[in-house]
Amino acid sequence: MKHRDLLPGRQFLGRVEKGEDMLEAFTGFARRQQIRLATITGIGALQKARISMYDQEKKSYNVMEINEETELTALLGNLSLKDGEIFCHLHATLTDADGKAWGGHVCDGCIVFALEFEIRELMGEDFHRMPDEDTGLALWEM
Amino acid sequence: MKHRDLLPGRQFLGRVEKGEDMLEAFTGFARRQQIRLATITGIGALQKARISMYDQEKKSYNVMEINEETELTALLGNLSLKDGEIFCHLHATLTDADGKAWGGHVCDGCIVFALEFEIRELMGEDFHRMPDEDTGLALWEM
Amino acid sequence: MKHRDLLPGRQFLGRVEKGEDMLEAFTGFARRQQIRLATITGIGALQKARISMYDQEKKSYNVMEINEETELTALLGNLSLKDGEIFCHLHATLTDADGKAWGGHVCDGCIVFALEFEIRELMGEDFHRMPDEDTGLALWEM
Repeated sequence: MKHRDLLPGRQFLGRVEKGEDMLEAFTGFARRQQIRLATITGIGALQKARISMYDQEKKSYNVMEINEETELTALLGNLSLKDGEIFCHLHATLTDADGKAWGGHVCDGCIVFALEFEIRELMGEDFHRMPDEDTGLALWEM
Repeated sequence: MKHRDLLPGRQFLGRVEKGEDMLEAFTGFARRQQIRLATITGIGALQKARISMYDQEKKSYNVMEINEETELTALLGNLSLKDGEIFCHLHATLTDADGKAWGGHVCDGCIVFALEFEIRELMGEDFHRMPDEDTGLALWEM
Repeated sequence: MKHRDLLPGRQFLGRVEKGEDMLEAFTGFARRQQIRLATITGIGALQKARISMYDQEKKSYNVMEINEETELTALLGNLSLKDGEIFCHLHATLTDADGKAWGGHVCDGCIVFALEFEIRELMGEDFHRMPDEDTGLALWEM
């Protein structure tokens, strides 16, 4: 386990509006506000979703489209740096009209119906995502 | 995306007791403590659940009753104001005896078996929920 | 509902490495750092999982093994004291290769593929887990 001890920064509470792309909305907001390190939580509903599950053997993502409306029961993620730019990493748990739950890594293409979020900034040394050979992922170098 | 920049307030850690209605417990606590703006997280187990999924076309909630015990794997939500009163909005992810996950918007009728929560108050301008014609929901006016 | 009003402590952001046991990693870290009270959130992926669902009548856990890789879409939990030692309580929501969600109480045997977490320490009176006859669980005495 690797970690850093950080200090609290700004705290934002707000909502993403109907029709916005969830991942783009968070990334754009963070870049405009220069939030270089933060955690994100949220709840809401999506018009449609695009999520992915990582194939740990093939080291590639399998993308899944959910072309129906869902409740967003848990949105958790973070903001840090990748290739020198502010980068947003989100995982979503979604439920369909029958209440059944689905989820995965959030891709472009998750269109918001309504979404309430909190972003809590952390202050300290920058966190940089770097290619990790063992997993094939871009992990924090620490 | 709309947001406000807020300051940290009080931080509460506690548990909801067996037999309490989850939504009523949080609403009652927040009103007694005058927590006007906050985020909520929690984990636990429910004796039975009543959740809903929003029908985005019909602009109405479809309620689903789960008359069996579940693990509450993710409780996320917030406290803000609606019609001048402190109002609690929660989404739950639940798993049944087979480990399968369900979830949605938390309604009255979620009876707690055990529940550990954190409430983190935020200080700043009040957040008021107002009717939003486009979605049919009561969204934060900001 | 029972609660205590607490003050913020240290804030840790980090990652659990591939091959680590999730519950052991958090417990070991918390004990080394002497984090006596905190909340935990995280997202990631597991190589395999061992979770349990509590049987509220029999007052015992039914353990379920997921011997395939999953996305960890929501990890929520806390650190407090049990039998005088720092104790970690976690609930996980996981999704399989089809995007279907599962979850429950986290047991030993959840092997991490990648995991990004935040631990937020809380300062105040210790929280002690004590046997609760009514539920059969070890709940915070408060």
